[in-house]
Amino acid sequence: MESLTRASMAVCPFVKASSTQTLRQISRTSGALANQARQCPFMSGALRAQERSYSSASRPARATASTTTPPSTASTPYAFKGENLTSSKVDLSSNESAFDYNGYLNNDLNKKREDKSYRFFNNINRLAKDFPEAHRSNEEDKVTVWCSNDYLGMGKNEGTLTEMKRVLEKYGSGAGGTRNIAGHNRHSIKLESELAALHKHEAALVFSSCFVANDAVLSLFGQKIKDLVIFSDVLNHASMIQGIRNSRARKEIFKHNNLADLEAKLAKYPKSTPKLIAFESVYSMCGSIAPIEAICDLAEKYGALTFLDEVHAVGMYGPHGAGVAEHLEFDAHLKAGIEQPNFQTIMNRVDMVTGTLGKAFGTVGGYVTGKANMIDWFRSYAPGFIFTTSLPPAVMAGSSAAVRYQRATLQDRIAQHKNTHAVKRDLLELGLPVMPNPSHIVPVLVGNAADAKRASDLLLEKHKIYVQAINFPTVPIGEERLRITPTPGHGPEISKALVEAVDSVFEELNLNRVKDWERQGGLCGVGDKSVEKVEHIWTAEQLSLTDADLNPNVKNPEIAPLGVSSGVPY
Amino acid sequence: MESLTRASMAVCPFVKASSTQTLRQISRTSGALANQARQCPFMSGALRAQERSYSSASRPARATASTTTPPSTASTPYAFKGENLTSSKVDLSSNESAFDYNGYLNNDLNKKREDKSYRFFNNINRLAKDFPEAHRSNEEDKVTVWCSNDYLGMGKNEGTLTEMKRVLEKYGSGAGGTRNIAGHNRHSIKLESELAALHKHEAALVFSSCFVANDAVLSLFGQKIKDLVIFSDVLNHASMIQGIRNSRARKEIFKHNNLADLEAKLAKYPKSTPKLIAFESVYSMCGSIAPIEAICDLAEKYGALTFLDEVHAVGMYGPHGAGVAEHLEFDAHLKAGIEQPNFQTIMNRVDMVTGTLGKAFGTVGGYVTGKANMIDWFRSYAPGFIFTTSLPPAVMAGSSAAVRYQRATLQDRIAQHKNTHAVKRDLLELGLPVMPNPSHIVPVLVGNAADAKRASDLLLEKHKIYVQAINFPTVPIGEERLRITPTPGHGPEISKALVEAVDSVFEELNLNRVKDWERQGGLCGVGDKSVEKVEHIWTAEQLSLTDADLNPNVKNPEIAPLGVSSGVPY
Repeated sequence: MESLTRASMAVCPFVKASSTQTLRQISRTSGALANQARQCPFMSGALRAQERSYSSASRPARATASTTTPPSTASTPYAFKGENLTSSKVDLSSNESAFDYNGYLNNDLNKKREDKSYRFFNNINRLAKDFPEAHRSNEEDKVTVWCSNDYLGMGKNEGTLTEMKRVLEKYGSGAGGTRNIAGHNRHSIKLESELAALHKHEAALVFSSCFVANDAVLSLFGQKIKDLVIFSDVLNHASMIQGIRNSRARKEIFKHNNLADLEAKLAKYPKSTPKLIAFESVYSMCGSIAPIEAICDLAEKYGALTFLDEVHAVGMYGPHGAGVAEHLEFDAHLKAGIEQPNFQTIMNRVDMVTGTLGKAFGTVGGYVTGKANMIDWFRSYAPGFIFTTSLPPAVMAGSSAAVRYQRATLQDRIAQHKNTHAVKRDLLELGLPVMPNPSHIVPVLVGNAADAKRASDLLLEKHKIYVQAINFPTVPIGEERLRITPTPGHGPEISKALVEAVDSVFEELNLNRVKDWERQGGLCGVGDKSVEKVEHIWTAEQLSLTDADLNPNVKNPEIAPLGVSSGVPY
Repeated sequence: MESLTRASMAVCPFVKASSTQTLRQISRTSGALANQARQCPFMSGALRAQERSYSSASRPARATASTTTPPSTASTPYAFKGENLTSSKVDLSSNESAFDYNGYLNNDLNKKREDKSYRFFNNINRLAKDFPEAHRSNEEDKVTVWCSNDYLGMGKNEGTLTEMKRVLEKYGSGAGGTRNIAGHNRHSIKLESELAALHKHEAALVFSSCFVANDAVLSLFGQKIKDLVIFSDVLNHASMIQGIRNSRARKEIFKHNNLADLEAKLAKYPKSTPKLIAFESVYSMCGSIAPIEAICDLAEKYGALTFLDEVHAVGMYGPHGAGVAEHLEFDAHLKAGIEQPNFQTIMNRVDMVTGTLGKAFGTVGGYVTGKANMIDWFRSYAPGFIFTTSLPPAVMAGSSAAVRYQRATLQDRIAQHKNTHAVKRDLLELGLPVMPNPSHIVPVLVGNAADAKRASDLLLEKHKIYVQAINFPTVPIGEERLRITPTPGHGPEISKALVEAVDSVFEELNLNRVKDWERQGGLCGVGDKSVEKVEHIWTAEQLSLTDADLNPNVKNPEIAPLGVSSGVPY
């Protein structure tokens, strides 16, 4: 890489403008300079050519070293049980080349650069007190964040922050162990009780993240239950896809939200064959919502378990923020408070719900809720739960505070959805291609990776608005988009600025509007005349409620004391 | 479950002593009561019998419900693109039974109860200010923790806690997004730079946990690189086993720390076949240490990548706490400070190091370090990194502070290892069966699950000392143990109390001592006359160093500014 530095010194304005100190630091870490150079119109071509030639050659450093460095004679003192750590008596005369790992990696990275799916992370520091403002690398460089999953602005919630600071002070910065070994405490017990109560399920289990929860739970089912077939919505999240893949169970992918296709696939198997239907409530990249109740009906008919990912819905739907399953019986749950209504609810009928603490609840971590024996089974058998350090007590405690706050607060959800409705309406009035959906997600179609990145960059640099471009593998190639997520803090004034900026960027980059997509036959529901008008799941009547309409027992409920004594497992 | 409650009311002192309110709450969540009942000598047998009969019957609730509840006619408003959500026209006349999920789960849980591997979590609340004390469910019930992985007591470190509180206040409780979407910030950039600098590698990538890092990295290699063979030490951690399994690569399991076996397996493949050797530096359940340098020699000879898990070693070994790879060239790294020594070091030769922030560094999270293009490849392709919410800014910032503190502080490591040596010596003097090893782990062999739990319970209840029993699947059946982990805070006085308590418990339960194992031919190195004397990896000379011996440049180093501008990917 030194030759690169020297070559750059001669011609590159970046190198010329940088101090020797900075350059020395950068050149010490060759990858950093190479990555910067790849952004440069002059250097990028040269670098790619160089990497191609490397990748077809052998691995020079290794091959040379191995002919000159004799292996150390392994001694025994570090080995357990004094096992036989004999010297390996290496014969170093082989001339055969090793696999070219370095070339492989460079080639694979170049593929991403070539198809424009290579990702550039934006340095965004969200400021709690100035929410939804953030600063970039320089603290003076402020932008408005319009794409965070902190949907309710809970990251700045005073109750959560106070509780986290209190618990940090008293119990320290980390859990210090797995749940089985020194990492189980009153904060994990309380959080799991809160989550079980939120979903009106018997028990809950917290994981490092909901990615881990989905992966661990789905893998376990497939690995343990012989002949299980997993039915998976084609738009399911990567964590569920990974879990299903790792489960090695037979899988059936059904068309997105398509009951007829799901039923046709269920009907292929005898009722006695174990089955699991895995789906989401809100699909976060397009905002569609699953027909949960009808899927439960099919599950009953064909003898399947239901696995519902409410990651993008918890905190956001239902009178208490338990998600879409609660929202579908809004009035009954509003009236019942934290109790079960006196009929079998959709929440009851779903066997497992997974959710996150890292989006609407504003902290970090994931969980699953369900019947006590099922949760105990995950607890007892899932490696992704068993063999990992618990979340810190302060994170668990802050999460409990956030869940409890949102369960007793309708206003944040309502404000969020009102702002969403306004932004969608105003964008559509200007013919901007909002993908129709009934949820809080505002996806604006662009249709290719390069334009989506250009639009995002222009919003950031010119308009000081941060909306990340969403590209492959998060969405299919050709369906790249801007994904806008209003919060209760994104009121009329900054929404106006957003809509004007998006309009200006679409103008400047000459991007397709609804009428353009219409001419091309439509894409992702935009300009597609066969799509009926989509109603929002939050009705006008629901949006007119206030916190006073909540059942008083949600404010200070007694949480079911699952496992409060140390003699029971959780 | 109601009949159970009624039956219990008549005979059970627990039920008699509980308020109606409490009972109502418990009875609402049937699993909680059942779990408590399983602890009871009277109820447990009855419950098991009842569960066995359930598991051979059909699934009553479901089957009944499905013959009476007609499915709702699915309507379209919530569906994306107005796809065909037709009513499923369910024919509910089928009499075939569904798979008995409930019976399956109960049976599988009973297996664990029967083989005594069913786990009971202890409610342990580690108190930062009274370290290493903790309280149990009742705050007055104090115990001394002797099994946490907060090896250096960093959970209470003032610098970490102050930084976490500052960042919580300024940037809020959560990251609010994945690294690609609003969750990348100065705290992640800084932490990854600190970690790369610690390991003297080009770059680093932070994951939710090291379980996720190991799983994600190993899976990716096997899934992407055609014909890769992974060579895995038989004692590798569950996270690596899961990653290797999920990679679907061909695998070769070699005997623990056995170079001859590893070489025999490597030699089965042509040099050009891509290979990866996955191993740990410190094996946490027995304390053995791998022959890292000799494994690197074999990797060079046979053209393999090296993947080294230093999870239990980071913070604990080496002059700067970078792990065993640093410790093996202690003097050179002590002298070089944060620079590279002027020869190819073992740290250089290892291709990837994974580590954790959740043990010696006292917070939470995991990471991998390596060459910049390799790290960029993980960043670009690993779903476990891409599709998950970032760790909170406060966790990242606290972790940076902890890593930097430990890099410039020899004293904690030295105090920890001195205390370890003393505890091992004192236990062995009483003939207590410490499994010989050169590291900071003090495993005391028990040899069966029931006795290990009894010993742990007795230590806790009678002696107020918390040492978790370690059972299957964490260790093999028949090798159950108590695993003791001293810290700098476990000085002579409380160590004396520990040793006396362990001695008393071994006496009371009549457990095997070294001489007993010797008569049985030895197990896990205990009472095995073929095992040579094991020397600790920290030498007396190293233990006599002070912080003044550290190179001054480690105190306030300039971290290489990897990706500080938003235009570069990380």
